[in-house]
Amino acid sequence: MSGHGTLKARIRADYPYILEYRTRWSDNDMYDHMNNSIYNFLYDSVINTYLMEHCDLHPSTSPQYGMVVHSHNNYFASISFPACAELALRVNKIGKSSVTYEIALFEKGVEGVKSVGEFIQVFVDRETTRPNTNGMANVLRQGLERIQMKPCVSKI
Amino acid sequence: MSGHGTLKARIRADYPYILEYRTRWSDNDMYDHMNNSIYNFLYDSVINTYLMEHCDLHPSTSPQYGMVVHSHNNYFASISFPACAELALRVNKIGKSSVTYEIALFEKGVEGVKSVGEFIQVFVDRETTRPNTNGMANVLRQGLERIQMKPCVSKI
Amino acid sequence: MSGHGTLKARIRADYPYILEYRTRWSDNDMYDHMNNSIYNFLYDSVINTYLMEHCDLHPSTSPQYGMVVHSHNNYFASISFPACAELALRVNKIGKSSVTYEIALFEKGVEGVKSVGEFIQVFVDRETTRPNTNGMANVLRQGLERIQMKPCVSKI
Amino acid sequence: MSGHGTLKARIRADYPYILEYRTRWSDNDMYDHMNNSIYNFLYDSVINTYLMEHCDLHPSTSPQYGMVVHSHNNYFASISFPACAELALRVNKIGKSSVTYEIALFEKGVEGVKSVGEFIQVFVDRETTRPNTNGMANVLRQGLERIQMKPCVSKI
Repeated sequence: MSGHGTLKARIRADYPYILEYRTRWSDNDMYDHMNNSIYNFLYDSVINTYLMEHCDLHPSTSPQYGMVVHSHNNYFASISFPACAELALRVNKIGKSSVTYEIALFEKGVEGVKSVGEFIQVFVDRETTRPNTNGMANVLRQGLERIQMKPCVSKI
Repeated sequence: MSGHGTLKARIRADYPYILEYRTRWSDNDMYDHMNNSIYNFLYDSVINTYLMEHCDLHPSTSPQYGMVVHSHNNYFASISFPACAELALRVNKIGKSSVTYEIALFEKGVEGVKSVGEFIQVFVDRETTRPNTNGMANVLRQGLERIQMKPCVSKI
Repeated sequence: MSGHGTLKARIRADYPYILEYRTRWSDNDMYDHMNNSIYNFLYDSVINTYLMEHCDLHPSTSPQYGMVVHSHNNYFASISFPACAELALRVNKIGKSSVTYEIALFEKGVEGVKSVGEFIQVFVDRETTRPNTNGMANVLRQGLERIQMKPCVSKI
Repeated sequence: MSGHGTLKARIRADYPYILEYRTRWSDNDMYDHMNNSIYNFLYDSVINTYLMEHCDLHPSTSPQYGMVVHSHNNYFASISFPACAELALRVNKIGKSSVTYEIALFEKGVEGVKSVGEFIQVFVDRETTRPNTNGMANVLRQGLERIQMKPCVSKI
């Protein structure tokens, strides 16, 4: 993953897919800002919405589904109920059966990024709960490639 | 509260205040629709957003705040992630220190109501956690009256 | 349901099935006590644990499962993280396909009851999501009857 | 943090502080195991219980409190409702104002570890929400040192 300074400088234009989520009363903890665990709920939500709407994932019937094997998150600034959050998604890396998502949280109407994290999912066959020898289904791969960041190649 | 048939016939126009909440992945339970407990989270959220934006409530500093003493809910139909929910709010009754809210949940783009419930809050003084002898603050009462349903009085 | 005074006088011995749940940091809201919505999470948990351990319910495969159609709750006193909660369950009524549970929340080491509520579930066939014409499965009925409160019949 | 293989070999004896948390119905997601976001809820809970019971933290009044600035987690195996989880805590590193916790999740009655993660908290002054120039309060430092892992020093 990129360095701390690079992540803290992320802007909305770095992400091809953004959804708005209204915060809920219970998201705030006793310190009057959104609890750190809620970020993962929202990261999970924007990822799965993308998978269902653009990669033909049907959570209860698809032959393959994604299992999260690693997650990490950097918290730069807080957000509080009743603000609206904007969840921004991109794909940093696609392997044979795995995908690395980068997710950022912004507050509607506020410029700086609040947090940036990554989730790594492994797509497994529903019957075996293990990766398929042929890797992830094509419909998943094609959907994920549409929001993958391409490396910038210098032509000089 | 009104009878079951009346509640099931509720429409958006019966409510003066409506907010949209995107459902989250974790809202769905193993039966693939939003868990019944999540409804209360959303009811609580639309109530507190109204209180903060229209009744000058500041949860961590206001001299009075609301404690829920009773809640009930009727579930008519289900909603599933990643749908957007619309939370509709009105006030059915205002007492000296208490208020009865009615909240309905709709799905964006779908006509029929999914659930209708009531929350009863008692406003208490922060210092004593008991109702004030003068009842709720005026700024609360005035804000709540703006979304109170007026009884229809026949003039005949 | 019983009157407010009767419910407020409930003791642990009124319930045949009790489980202990440790509260979580995020259960507390900005007012420093467990948020009202969390009660429903815990009610749902003790009910479903009973169904899985004593009524042979397998949420992802059983031919019938329960849908909550109504819930209500009375909040008598608060509880705060990191206290341990005790969730107490009994069955108040069994119909052809429906069951009415009564659930109470106590705090470990504290005498008085914190809240008492009811959930009404209708058991539906997984394939149709409608009640079976023969009502709920026998294994469910028999399990639920084991914690049903018997009416006290005067012999005089 | 330690390598993947080392973490996957963690046992309960590697942790000086363990609390049991019963899983809740809503912890399971549509794939019938506890959702990855719930792990953070439980990590947060065991950390804060330790801080309140052994480091004199009072979330709503203490002059300093902890803000999570980074979290990561490795998921090795799943756990499902209604199992009981055991949350195991140790401190890996203490800085001037920051602390790195390592948390592991086990299932009661099951040997292998389910997940291992780290949270980094920075203690800030309540009034400024910034670290104190003198670092964290002594009562916090002393409490955290009691569960800190000591480096193994070879005597050869």
